[in-house]
Amino acid sequence: MAKAPTVEDVARAAGVSRQTVSNVLNSPDIVRPATRERVERAIAELGYRPHAAARRLRTRRSSTLGIRLDPYSGGVSGVVLDRFVHALTERASARGLRILLYAARTAEEEIDRIRDLLDGGEIDAVVLTGTFRGDPRTAWLAAHAAPFVSFGRPWDDDAAPSHSWVDVDGAAGTRMATTWALAHAGPRVAFLGWPAGSDTGDDRERGWREAMPEGAPLVRLTAVDGVAPAREAVAETLRAGGDAPDAIVCASDTLAIGAHLAAVTAGRPTLPIVGFDNTPAAEAMGLSSIEQRPEDVAAGTLELLAGAEGAVIDPAERAAHVLVEPRLVVRTEPPRG
Amino acid sequence: MAKAPTVEDVARAAGVSRQTVSNVLNSPDIVRPATRERVERAIAELGYRPHAAARRLRTRRSSTLGIRLDPYSGGVSGVVLDRFVHALTERASARGLRILLYAARTAEEEIDRIRDLLDGGEIDAVVLTGTFRGDPRTAWLAAHAAPFVSFGRPWDDDAAPSHSWVDVDGAAGTRMATTWALAHAGPRVAFLGWPAGSDTGDDRERGWREAMPEGAPLVRLTAVDGVAPAREAVAETLRAGGDAPDAIVCASDTLAIGAHLAAVTAGRPTLPIVGFDNTPAAEAMGLSSIEQRPEDVAAGTLELLAGAEGAVIDPAERAAHVLVEPRLVVRTEPPRG
Repeated sequence: MAKAPTVEDVARAAGVSRQTVSNVLNSPDIVRPATRERVERAIAELGYRPHAAARRLRTRRSSTLGIRLDPYSGGVSGVVLDRFVHALTERASARGLRILLYAARTAEEEIDRIRDLLDGGEIDAVVLTGTFRGDPRTAWLAAHAAPFVSFGRPWDDDAAPSHSWVDVDGAAGTRMATTWALAHAGPRVAFLGWPAGSDTGDDRERGWREAMPEGAPLVRLTAVDGVAPAREAVAETLRAGGDAPDAIVCASDTLAIGAHLAAVTAGRPTLPIVGFDNTPAAEAMGLSSIEQRPEDVAAGTLELLAGAEGAVIDPAERAAHVLVEPRLVVRTEPPRG
Repeated sequence: MAKAPTVEDVARAAGVSRQTVSNVLNSPDIVRPATRERVERAIAELGYRPHAAARRLRTRRSSTLGIRLDPYSGGVSGVVLDRFVHALTERASARGLRILLYAARTAEEEIDRIRDLLDGGEIDAVVLTGTFRGDPRTAWLAAHAAPFVSFGRPWDDDAAPSHSWVDVDGAAGTRMATTWALAHAGPRVAFLGWPAGSDTGDDRERGWREAMPEGAPLVRLTAVDGVAPAREAVAETLRAGGDAPDAIVCASDTLAIGAHLAAVTAGRPTLPIVGFDNTPAAEAMGLSSIEQRPEDVAAGTLELLAGAEGAVIDPAERAAHVLVEPRLVVRTEPPRG
């Protein structure tokens, strides 16, 4: 690249020593005003910028946040995390912070990577994603007093959380969807969820249960997260006849797409179905969906991590959290077949 | 975070001066063997790692590649770039390189960001995406001799390209799809593309034209890249009756989804339709699609940018390129309604 001006260039232009330039940059008080002005003029004229590495070494701050990016695994909902990374990059940039991506295949490998990056002064803090019960990463980060925020709440922590986190209120989303379906479709609002035992899935199911009126029939369908299994589960229910559901609230857009295809086959192409994640796939099929607002999750993450002037702060002392309210995107005139 | 051992800690443990530790790290030849061994033992015992910022300052190398990440704009095909970033992160990591994300809203703003990052020694090279005719970014990077590779060929450069690039052979993809459709569906293979004037779109159309036999009817449908416009364009053709197409090759998955919905409405749910990008949306709907192989694009990018031991090399002298052959993903038993 075009050679950037160096300290030597500045020193030559100002007619001073290299050390004097360095003093102006780091300890301006000890330099005589006239000399300081001459050096500052040379810095401005040459467009000299102190090397970031030098600045980092001085401040021991990289102004950089690390986040893991997993290998692409396909699937309809992967876009949510990507959208979060997009928003994080943009909002961090506005605060003068950078985003550094790293790869890791296991939690243990991720801890190694994080240690290297923190030790090397390459990142100041970590944004953890995909947290799970007994996650060794949060334990390690807490034990090493490393500043971090997780996208995902600590499910196994019933008492006060031990670290800062941002998450989306899944139950609020399905509550919203169920309330909408009860008002616009009918009393038999079914829920299509994953097999029990998933914290996220149980949370989303809870919202549906809470929104259903006392004594209303609770039709709970189950499928693993795939279009074909969802289609099969819903097809069976619709074939059973009798009390077919008036609407179906789903734990994911993948399940919603399967449910919709089953409804089309059963001759009910307009059966109201609500997905979760508001992915491009749901949009393309004209399905309603609950939107996670990844942009607000990114904003919350930076609120917890970045202090004034973009400096990274350690949120551990506060152990605060941000719970983002999702929103329901209703598509009532779908481009359905 | 837990305080990492410093040069001072090593010096104290080895009973030498700070300068001696520094000499062992940077000019081991000038240190007496016995002293060197003592310092090296202290380094190993304490687990001291030279601060990355210090290393960068010494080598003037960050081992970091910069890539722009735009705000999420929705749409079915955005996943291709995200998948490329995932693959780039993973493959770069394996070579000891890091990926730094930056945001920019215009080409001019991106040039400013790149200049800052290069000047600051924060990145060694740039991976440019979304290139276009008369792109000021490539001109600026070339003029400043900054190492870079673009994902996207220089369309306005008929002669030898002035810089290194990686791209996907779109024409090869639609050629493949058309040949498959001719063999499995019938002679009337239509093409659904964007309005003329898009380099990428024209390239994809060219592959279809080249694969069609001499004298075969060339049905070229046009729609802007949206599900609804595509659906309308195809619905009209199918309504026209008579010589309806036997298959439709599309310039994107968005167009393919619209085409499929029109076919379902017209009572032809099994009309073979091939999209482009092999997105999760196409997969969820059981549509065939041309896969860009973003992982191979990432591998090609690093081949051009990274030399031995992960050091970033300047590909400008070679101005080489990698044209990735896409592959056709055929879905013959689609979960269609």
